Amino acid sequence: MNVKPAVSRRNFVSGLAAALGYLGLGQDADLFAQTRPGTPGRSRAPLTDYDNLAKLANNENPYGPPESVMKAMTDALKYANRYGYPDGGIVQAIAEHHGVKPENILLGAGSGEILTVIGATFLQGGRKVVGVEPSYNSVYQYASGVKADAIKLPLDKDYRQNMPAMIKATKDNYRDVGFVYLVNPNNPTGVIVTKDEVKLLLDSIPHDMPVLIDEAYHHFVEDPRYATSLPYVLEGRQVIIARTFSKISGIAGMRLGYAVAPTELINRMRPYSVASINAIVKWGGVAALKDTAAQEHVKRVTVQGRKKVTADLESLGYDVIPSEANFVMVHVGRPVQSVIEDFRKRDVLVGRPFPPMNEHLRVSIGTPDEMDRFMVAWKEIFPAKSTTAAANRIG
Amino acid sequence: MNVKPAVSRRNFVSGLAAALGYLGLGQDADLFAQTRPGTPGRSRAPLTDYDNLAKLANNENPYGPPESVMKAMTDALKYANRYGYPDGGIVQAIAEHHGVKPENILLGAGSGEILTVIGATFLQGGRKVVGVEPSYNSVYQYASGVKADAIKLPLDKDYRQNMPAMIKATKDNYRDVGFVYLVNPNNPTGVIVTKDEVKLLLDSIPHDMPVLIDEAYHHFVEDPRYATSLPYVLEGRQVIIARTFSKISGIAGMRLGYAVAPTELINRMRPYSVASINAIVKWGGVAALKDTAAQEHVKRVTVQGRKKVTADLESLGYDVIPSEANFVMVHVGRPVQSVIEDFRKRDVLVGRPFPPMNEHLRVSIGTPDEMDRFMVAWKEIFPAKSTTAAANRIG
Repeated sequence: MNVKPAVSRRNFVSGLAAALGYLGLGQDADLFAQTRPGTPGRSRAPLTDYDNLAKLANNENPYGPPESVMKAMTDALKYANRYGYPDGGIVQAIAEHHGVKPENILLGAGSGEILTVIGATFLQGGRKVVGVEPSYNSVYQYASGVKADAIKLPLDKDYRQNMPAMIKATKDNYRDVGFVYLVNPNNPTGVIVTKDEVKLLLDSIPHDMPVLIDEAYHHFVEDPRYATSLPYVLEGRQVIIARTFSKISGIAGMRLGYAVAPTELINRMRPYSVASINAIVKWGGVAALKDTAAQEHVKRVTVQGRKKVTADLESLGYDVIPSEANFVMVHVGRPVQSVIEDFRKRDVLVGRPFPPMNEHLRVSIGTPDEMDRFMVAWKEIFPAKSTTAAANRIG
Repeated sequence: MNVKPAVSRRNFVSGLAAALGYLGLGQDADLFAQTRPGTPGRSRAPLTDYDNLAKLANNENPYGPPESVMKAMTDALKYANRYGYPDGGIVQAIAEHHGVKPENILLGAGSGEILTVIGATFLQGGRKVVGVEPSYNSVYQYASGVKADAIKLPLDKDYRQNMPAMIKATKDNYRDVGFVYLVNPNNPTGVIVTKDEVKLLLDSIPHDMPVLIDEAYHHFVEDPRYATSLPYVLEGRQVIIARTFSKISGIAGMRLGYAVAPTELINRMRPYSVASINAIVKWGGVAALKDTAAQEHVKRVTVQGRKKVTADLESLGYDVIPSEANFVMVHVGRPVQSVIEDFRKRDVLVGRPFPPMNEHLRVSIGTPDEMDRFMVAWKEIFPAKSTTAAANRIG
């Protein structure tokens, strides 16, 4: 088996790997235990396959953390046994990065914890979240799990989050709504909410209504009609911005994210926070904020990959939703579950189904090599139309 | 400044440190930001001092993770950028370790997350937790933060958790009680609840009442009257055992703990779980369970340190509560806050005050060197009685 650590391109990690000797990866055959009934959780690839797969399923950063971040985390391993360790000043660093105060920041174990905390804070007593479907469904799953509820609005015909519908739903259900949820850019579509649309929403709903704007994919946007909604926090609007180090900084597995919000909202949320974040990722986060060159590099290669796969699929005659994130969605014209399985047989992991968009496939932007493998598999899985389209272009 | 990484005794980490070059530790002067108003959280030592302090405040394992665990975690850094990574089969490994099924296990980011999840699950609608005071106060803090409540019973005269009082409080308030909370051994006293007392409690309260038994310090107990309450889970009793890798395994900063409970309780708790655990600590946990030699070593040196500091303090004429954990509590005979400050001036961190035991000091069992520093400081801070006692023994 050809084991290629995701970080092997980094010299110092390769050196580390060589020095320590990587653990044999075939030793544990029971990883499927993670997917058996009774232990829900993200489905995991079997260990013997994992390193060889093209991993285009989870919107991960395929390049891994930059050397600066890996070094900061490795150095901080000396705090592995401590609670009261120095943490690199992560809260202060985030606050300075955004021009807010430390009391405007709540750290989470990934932005996933932030979404859970917001649910716990604002959906008590069966209150409702207003958002679109499909969107990042962690919030809806939480609401469902705790017997709260969601008002899930359909996307409009351009796959955009429909602001007038969201405004109307919020006003019509004002007394029952706990918060409004935007994902910008949206997942799984990659479509943005423009800054004008955000302003329309905030100006149109009751001003005491909390609005969660999940900007997990912020760093990959090029469209000038988009802007972060962080300035609304400085204005004192009831806006909570969720950000993550999982995407642009490549430390999804290390779990670090945060909320930026007015102090009174942070103070309401804080009692529901587990406040249980890994020691070393805090140092990684501080290093990540400083390493703007690494961020620019990841953005550049990701946007290149996004444009290339979009052009490749369109040249074969397929409709691709214009994405501003590190993934794209393509219309496959048949139920996507079987398409996912066809890719899996070819060692390519692609996104799960996102109902009700059951004939769309989400593919994350991997390395150029992974994207080549995706396109080779695509042409095998969809030979007829691909051939026709190619013939059309030749003809 | 003399920087001594907690893990420097491990050859391969020393090699790593040498290869990478440790970051200068004086760069970040703003760690006090963590303690300013509006950003509550564990108070952190300033970075310039931290490595030189005797760290006896937080019941940490001063030896850090064993080499097996550090290697597993370092190897797993290649999953730092992934969500869907192989996780070493951590849930299965824990289940096998305890002879239960994977569906009896809920992972948490430290047992701290487990306590929060149990609070969120069972204290809804302002329900109450029944426990003693002082005890590990995370549960009570959570209850207070979310507008639930706690019935906090005093310890008995031997600093034991009073089972008859706990039974009576549970029965008297049955309709309002969400769960009963034992910490065994208790923190901050180190005193156990005997297996007979646990049985009395479980047999005496309504059988549908959940009982959380926090066994964070399980591995340090020598008293044969103690036993883990895990068998009650196998019997199907409404018992939730919380365990952590923070103590015996020395990875407090990495954040891994778990609950063991009947499936129906785990299923009630799961929706409140953030399920957001660092990728590399899962591999560390699997390695830790296997490294029984390391566990035995840590237990042996910890128990030795516990006995020595107890004997040393008693020989000076001070009353020490008999502890079965990795800390001891000593009666200092005056308000402990000023004593804590006296130790701090001597670069020794000791436990915070634990009201209402305001004249008791909790000191964690550190390395022999740290304990020597503690005793030197003690004799400076309490010279009179120490001299008298020494004179008495000589005379």
